[in-house]
Amino acid sequence: MPDLTVLVESDLRAAVGLGAEERAAIEAVYPVVTAGRASMPPIMRIDVPEHRGEIDVKSAYLPGWPGIAVKVSAGFFDNPSRGLPSLGGLMMLFDSETGVPQAALFDNGFLTDLRTALAGAVAADHLARPDARRVAVLGAGVQAGLQVRALVGVRDLDQVVVWARRADAGRALADELADELGVTAEATGTVADALHGADIAVTTTPTTEPFVVADMLHPGLHVTAVGSDAEQKQELAADVLLAADVVVADRIDQSTRLGELRAAVAAGFDPDEAVELGAVIAGDAPGRTTPDQVTVCDLTGTGAQDTAIATLALQRCREAGRGTTLAT
Amino acid sequence: MPDLTVLVESDLRAAVGLGAEERAAIEAVYPVVTAGRASMPPIMRIDVPEHRGEIDVKSAYLPGWPGIAVKVSAGFFDNPSRGLPSLGGLMMLFDSETGVPQAALFDNGFLTDLRTALAGAVAADHLARPDARRVAVLGAGVQAGLQVRALVGVRDLDQVVVWARRADAGRALADELADELGVTAEATGTVADALHGADIAVTTTPTTEPFVVADMLHPGLHVTAVGSDAEQKQELAADVLLAADVVVADRIDQSTRLGELRAAVAAGFDPDEAVELGAVIAGDAPGRTTPDQVTVCDLTGTGAQDTAIATLALQRCREAGRGTTLAT
Repeated sequence: MPDLTVLVESDLRAAVGLGAEERAAIEAVYPVVTAGRASMPPIMRIDVPEHRGEIDVKSAYLPGWPGIAVKVSAGFFDNPSRGLPSLGGLMMLFDSETGVPQAALFDNGFLTDLRTALAGAVAADHLARPDARRVAVLGAGVQAGLQVRALVGVRDLDQVVVWARRADAGRALADELADELGVTAEATGTVADALHGADIAVTTTPTTEPFVVADMLHPGLHVTAVGSDAEQKQELAADVLLAADVVVADRIDQSTRLGELRAAVAAGFDPDEAVELGAVIAGDAPGRTTPDQVTVCDLTGTGAQDTAIATLALQRCREAGRGTTLAT
Repeated sequence: MPDLTVLVESDLRAAVGLGAEERAAIEAVYPVVTAGRASMPPIMRIDVPEHRGEIDVKSAYLPGWPGIAVKVSAGFFDNPSRGLPSLGGLMMLFDSETGVPQAALFDNGFLTDLRTALAGAVAADHLARPDARRVAVLGAGVQAGLQVRALVGVRDLDQVVVWARRADAGRALADELADELGVTAEATGTVADALHGADIAVTTTPTTEPFVVADMLHPGLHVTAVGSDAEQKQELAADVLLAADVVVADRIDQSTRLGELRAAVAAGFDPDEAVELGAVIAGDAPGRTTPDQVTVCDLTGTGAQDTAIATLALQRCREAGRGTTLAT
């Protein structure tokens, strides 16, 4: 059998980041998915009720891509009491022409964090005002920071406002981003304050109680919601989608089941009014057409993104001679 | 993060085989599955039509087992023209209490072959006559040989008859088994000849045209069908199940969809007449109650078996210091 490449988190962190090539790799998959050319089964889920855990498996084949990623994500919510992170996972990459295992990517969730942040930048690139300068980020976790760092690749940002339930975490992230990106950054005490005057807002929390409502919107705002990926999660009140001029989702069917479209459709939003990000990228659907529109994009995450980032990471690692080769 | 163990096929072949402990490990999972205590989602399938390929993912959580296997199987049918096997795959093992990756098992399908053969022995142990001595094996591939080798662990065999479409392969397997097991072994030209006088018959082919019919049955025969695991596959004509006194399946719902129960139910067999192997093992359903009954067991394969064999293989490899340790 051909050799297999084993990559650990440090290899992957050295190989891929939030650059233009990575962003282009993520951008390229959406039109393939929207055109129905990907083979992407529903998420497989194994429940482990005794340990408040679950294992999810995502995968996608994209015609023309050299690899097929199979991603296994674990979420075990008693782990912190054992000194372990709640979330973990890894990806396997298989040759798309032969099915032969190419690589094991022990990324501990790094590649998922990365592709999610890059997707936020892709959405903003296609939907936010070209002159957007002010970003509000809701949440202060790893993904909140990554979303802002990815956005500087597509817009010339000068101000960041962070809102988080834990005020100290919000302040720490604001300080970190100010130092790192050379922007003005501050934490605010309310969601409404954070959104006031923002050109782009990104919601990054696992909440089940929506905290963005239509009253907080203003002309020209673009909102990307990345937190909701399960039946019970919701960041945007249903009236946000009803009030928006343009509603976009990475996958409309998945968003209607697991994302922000779920509650909105229940409240009367017509899913035929939503368009897929792939259609906007391909030029088959209009995105923002005037500076004053309110645009919303819901990202629930897809196996296609995993395949895109994993194939790029393997290519980069092979070029740089990173990782361990294993004869299987 | 805790270290991860990387095991390749040679490690696994040195660690686990067709012994009593392995058989007991496989036997133990069926009552758990039948009792509904396993978390075992439907098989996930990624189609790769451009390369006549597919990738299947199976998994199961069994309460009390230390690991959860996620198995990825690849079948790419243009591979032989590239000098590669059509079938391949690997398993990942996750800690069932924390979800942390424990091991990558690059087994190239060896563990699947093994657990399938062990399941055949478990079925025969519970359903064949205690004095069974003569085995007919239909097919001459890897699984055909393994089924016979596993059966010697549960019955005192003295005669093996092989039938295969490729007569030379049938003769070669018969010679191999005669040498290895010290039994009389021969190849026959017809399925009816192979079954004539057999106490146990095992069908191991991927055929879509059933080759065992009710006329070939005789009192006291036990038949195990391991080949069918997809909608189009079928080894036993529907009248075989209608004629049998006892019909058993590893999972009735899966067998009705992908196994021998599919065609039988379409032909009028009442699925309520079938019992699960787990119920027989647990003593909740009778198996064979008289020496003259005809018994049939359909095995379609489950993620629970993968979890059982993978956790045992990892335990054995760790005890023996096999494999490579990776800090992830």
